[in-house]
Amino acid sequence: MKGRRKPRKKTKPARRSHCAVACTLDLVGDHWTLLVVRDLVAGKQYFDEFLRSPERIATNVLAARLKALQEQGLIEKVPDLADRRRYTYRFTEAGRHLQELLGHIAGWGRKYLPGTRILEGIEMPPT
Amino acid sequence: MKGRRKPRKKTKPARRSHCAVACTLDLVGDHWTLLVVRDLVAGKQYFDEFLRSPERIATNVLAARLKALQEQGLIEKVPDLADRRRYTYRFTEAGRHLQELLGHIAGWGRKYLPGTRILEGIEMPPT
Repeated sequence: MKGRRKPRKKTKPARRSHCAVACTLDLVGDHWTLLVVRDLVAGKQYFDEFLRSPERIATNVLAARLKALQEQGLIEKVPDLADRRRYTYRFTEAGRHLQELLGHIAGWGRKYLPGTRILEGIEMPPT
Repeated sequence: MKGRRKPRKKTKPARRSHCAVACTLDLVGDHWTLLVVRDLVAGKQYFDEFLRSPERIATNVLAARLKALQEQGLIEKVPDLADRRRYTYRFTEAGRHLQELLGHIAGWGRKYLPGTRILEGIEMPPT
């Protein structure tokens, strides 16, 4: 098996269309990604912190979503300054715009889904 | 096998949390549902019409998403008045609110994802 390489670098899949909705869903259109975004917006930065969120994301799902967000250039993984064996996750410049999307979705949910609330630290867009 | 019944009625899964974002994603947090919503907003109402959208949703995926939206009380399936063997899909009162969510997502996509556009018939929320 020597010399055999795993194919690592995935090429970006082609867009399904140029629809703004379709392209946004290509980024964050799944059950979990926006919850990771929510946690980042709320100030969480460690893998363990995301795991402790009330929705109980599974370890492998979290790892996959963080990796996808990194590959899309929306977050970056940087060594923790306090403990170099640990990593923190943070938005890139492009990823920071997701905060605005999150605010809209949170606002819609609170408005139309009875009994829901907006977690602390999530900023709402001006209405 | 006579008398044996398939379990038909699924009980609604418990919420992952009361977070407004998580609950919104429970409704529409997948790759395809909001594209069906987009098509409904744009005036499409037949199964065939959804299939012809540029993203080329697969027949089985479309059927599953329409069924889920029905089960969530967001759309209804009604016999076509012009041809009783056909069905049309339309928003329920509750489902109509999805238009607002869609507008926010479309607006975000157009603003931050270069080269995307908003399909005809999608109304944008006031900014």
